[in-house]
Amino acid sequence: MPFGALIDGRAIAGEIHQETARRAAQVKARGVQPCLVFIRAGEDAASRVYVGMKEKACAQLGFASRTQVLPATTREEDLLALLAGLNGDAAVHGILVQAPLPRHISESRIYGAVDPNKDVDGFHPVNVGKLMLGDTSGFRSCTPAGIHELLIRSGVVIEGAEVVILGRGNIVGKPMAAILVQKAKHAGATVTVCHSQTRDIAAHCRRADILIAAMGAAEFVKADMVKPGAVVIDVGVNRVPDAAVRGGSRLVGDVDFAGVRPKAGKITPNPGGVGPMTIALLMHNTMRAAERAAGLASPP
Amino acid sequence: MPFGALIDGRAIAGEIHQETARRAAQVKARGVQPCLVFIRAGEDAASRVYVGMKEKACAQLGFASRTQVLPATTREEDLLALLAGLNGDAAVHGILVQAPLPRHISESRIYGAVDPNKDVDGFHPVNVGKLMLGDTSGFRSCTPAGIHELLIRSGVVIEGAEVVILGRGNIVGKPMAAILVQKAKHAGATVTVCHSQTRDIAAHCRRADILIAAMGAAEFVKADMVKPGAVVIDVGVNRVPDAAVRGGSRLVGDVDFAGVRPKAGKITPNPGGVGPMTIALLMHNTMRAAERAAGLASPP
Repeated sequence: MPFGALIDGRAIAGEIHQETARRAAQVKARGVQPCLVFIRAGEDAASRVYVGMKEKACAQLGFASRTQVLPATTREEDLLALLAGLNGDAAVHGILVQAPLPRHISESRIYGAVDPNKDVDGFHPVNVGKLMLGDTSGFRSCTPAGIHELLIRSGVVIEGAEVVILGRGNIVGKPMAAILVQKAKHAGATVTVCHSQTRDIAAHCRRADILIAAMGAAEFVKADMVKPGAVVIDVGVNRVPDAAVRGGSRLVGDVDFAGVRPKAGKITPNPGGVGPMTIALLMHNTMRAAERAAGLASPP
Repeated sequence: MPFGALIDGRAIAGEIHQETARRAAQVKARGVQPCLVFIRAGEDAASRVYVGMKEKACAQLGFASRTQVLPATTREEDLLALLAGLNGDAAVHGILVQAPLPRHISESRIYGAVDPNKDVDGFHPVNVGKLMLGDTSGFRSCTPAGIHELLIRSGVVIEGAEVVILGRGNIVGKPMAAILVQKAKHAGATVTVCHSQTRDIAAHCRRADILIAAMGAAEFVKADMVKPGAVVIDVGVNRVPDAAVRGGSRLVGDVDFAGVRPKAGKITPNPGGVGPMTIALLMHNTMRAAERAAGLASPP
């Protein structure tokens, strides 16, 4: 078995973008331009960067997009009113409310107020529920769905694999577990979810055929926690101080990439692994929303 | 550590029924009688028994209930129309569509058509999604919520425990995993979900502090698969042939009770373990639905 092969998230995301572009041409032929609206509140620097990347992806695919920037002092009811308007606007296919929101606004109330048919982030309870139930009519949340595509398109066998997921968040850990455990094609793994309360995380990691690190702990996964030949997916984005670089800090993943790579069968670089896939799946979901609006068949 | 202690589901369900009865008295004082409507289609013998047990529980608690029995030839649209009427009937607080439905009817379409606020079975995607997200405003599906209560009220420590769940069904396995993995009080377990595609189920079982068997495989869990002192919960209901009994068959669980009991720290009998809890949680959910209708606070 070769070791240390890279799973190229940028290349695989590029394939998905090409598929999405072909589908976009079909709906445009019917007079429909896919349209995604972003909402940001306040001036979180990372949010600004993320929304900018997603806007750029829209432009590249010929999707319409616009961003509504609200002041950090926006009241929850104003945001709800804005969502109600977008829900009712037939020209808008997808709505994305960028987290984090100001603290006085309830994220769950906001996510629950997006029309599930426009919830291309897959955060509405009805879409989360469908994902858990194995009902493919909903939108799957973009990061776990993107990781799923990474695994499939890298030829990783999921059926019967021992999967260990580090992290139980609503955005990655929990939906990732639900996707991989399903009785379905490209699923059927035995899934363990570990987190901060797990007694011996290293022991769990060492028995994983597929290890997905989404804890938000800088370079937490070391080589001695990885089974030789395992597939390692790094979802983490952690800022750590580094006096040697401009700005005094740098971004690292949840995996000690240099140490783990020689032992892993396949591994995602970070950046260039999961991140581009999240955006690719967001565009894919928006494409589906537009296809439905155009009355076209829309594979999941 | 003592071995073989029984977790008495009937006694614990009785405690919950008493709490529900106290709450029922409060809503009745406001002129509201909790009301649960059952729908059965066709003449499945087990469905008839289950609905009968739930009707009896309603009667004991002073809830109103009625059962609509539809012919096996009922069309899906007729069932949907019936649900629409019940959704709009303010005197009805809970609606339970007993599975299995005739094959020409889509269970997911039917479950999705029950008003989530009356979905006391917790099968609507929005309630499934809320359960997964840790949002306690929804209804939790009755069997996993019942098992959760069994564990809590038996003094089992869930936080940090190694939990292994056998079975990944939508009714037990998946929601059970979601409940126990949450970052919340009486949760925080490390959870592994095993199923028919798992490579070495026995090895997983042997490391479980809490083993929950919901595969539907008669007496599958044997003593050599259980860690000494583990808590063993048997959800299975399997009919096996037995020439020695009247009728030629008997019901057994997923656990070889006689063999496993001496090795387990605590174990549910079956019957008398999980079954009564499912009904207790159904009544609890219906109570909550009625409390909301009466404008009363309603703890989860």
